[in-house]
Amino acid sequence: MSTAGTLERGAIERGAIERGAIERGAIERIVREIVLARAPQATEPKLVVSISARHVHLTDEHVERLFGAGRQLTPMKDLYQDGFYAAEETVMVVGPKRKMLPTVRVLGPTRPRSQVELAFTDGISLGIDLPVRPSGKIAGTPGCVLVGPLGVVELEEGVIRAERHVHMNDGHAAHYGVKNGERMSLLIESSCSVVLRDLLVRADATSKLEVHLDTDEGNAADLDHAWKVELLRQN
Amino acid sequence: MSTAGTLERGAIERGAIERGAIERGAIERIVREIVLARAPQATEPKLVVSISARHVHLTDEHVERLFGAGRQLTPMKDLYQDGFYAAEETVMVVGPKRKMLPTVRVLGPTRPRSQVELAFTDGISLGIDLPVRPSGKIAGTPGCVLVGPLGVVELEEGVIRAERHVHMNDGHAAHYGVKNGERMSLLIESSCSVVLRDLLVRADATSKLEVHLDTDEGNAADLDHAWKVELLRQN
Repeated sequence: MSTAGTLERGAIERGAIERGAIERGAIERIVREIVLARAPQATEPKLVVSISARHVHLTDEHVERLFGAGRQLTPMKDLYQDGFYAAEETVMVVGPKRKMLPTVRVLGPTRPRSQVELAFTDGISLGIDLPVRPSGKIAGTPGCVLVGPLGVVELEEGVIRAERHVHMNDGHAAHYGVKNGERMSLLIESSCSVVLRDLLVRADATSKLEVHLDTDEGNAADLDHAWKVELLRQN
Repeated sequence: MSTAGTLERGAIERGAIERGAIERGAIERIVREIVLARAPQATEPKLVVSISARHVHLTDEHVERLFGAGRQLTPMKDLYQDGFYAAEETVMVVGPKRKMLPTVRVLGPTRPRSQVELAFTDGISLGIDLPVRPSGKIAGTPGCVLVGPLGVVELEEGVIRAERHVHMNDGHAAHYGVKNGERMSLLIESSCSVVLRDLLVRADATSKLEVHLDTDEGNAADLDHAWKVELLRQN
């Protein structure tokens, strides 16, 4: 009931680095993925652990307000889950006290509600005490101001730390003996080994098996240099 | 063989915030301490979990080169371990490619060798691939440039991510059944629960019981809002 194996070093993927626009102090990697290409048993599903740096999801309306009438997002890099991508577009996220993050990547496709996903390190630098929420559950969360090249959007809510979670299809869920909405643990073995508890299971018909962590979690565990990742049923 | 209890909310201590000098994006808290004031059993030692933000240790010689001939560090805030303090002095840490952290706190007292302790998030922003080392074991580690108000020091080595560790006295070690140099685990229960494995045990005659984490680890676990911390023998 676990997936484990050695890491394929070459499979570590780093997101595009935009050298010109990013300020000193910014985390420059959009998405880092640790791919467990070699499973210990043929029956084990392939496990990918991805680190999502801070990013923004936008509505169609907000894309137009920030980037101009008629504008749509421009896909720059496909994400691991089919149909999702990092866009060319970035926005400035402004918090209270006029602190800001100058260049935060927009992920596509657009959504019914805009949402900003930050790590706690980002929240501290912005002066926002981030609530931990599953994606989309943003009622009562803090807001912020988004600044794009052609306009500004004031979000009344939607700034969160995304709750760590694992995407999977129904076959993976059956393999691990878990159901959508249940919890699992992720063991990361490295020079800074951790067990991340309470990963929310998000199971549906079609998702690939993928854990989503944020940069604080990935950095705490030194995921880039990990030699083993293992998904565990939680006792 | 564990220490556990609820957190006393008022006991959470935040380091001084220096508003003028710190740049946007900087983590402004020097030391955060989570104090387990109420132990579940009278026999359990009091456990403190502290988060150290990025900081620098300096030699006497480097203090004079950075801050002026004859200068000594000026204690600003006592740390939990007796005799240690955050100093008034800060330095700029410059990495390769002229990226820098403008205001990094100096901790005292001075040491035989200068050393820079950063979180991976800091290392990424500086462009330094940090090795994980116990404090003082800096042979072969990356260097950097330190800039003070009156001088500059080029460190040939000494930039590390400090290995997570737990200070204790010999009585605590006997209580937990561990020896200096062995490993323990720390359970943090919060909205982002984790088990941090392989904490290095640093036992001596006089230290208080205190876990030292960095900001990535503290943020990954949301230590500020944790309801339980527990030190565990590692299997």
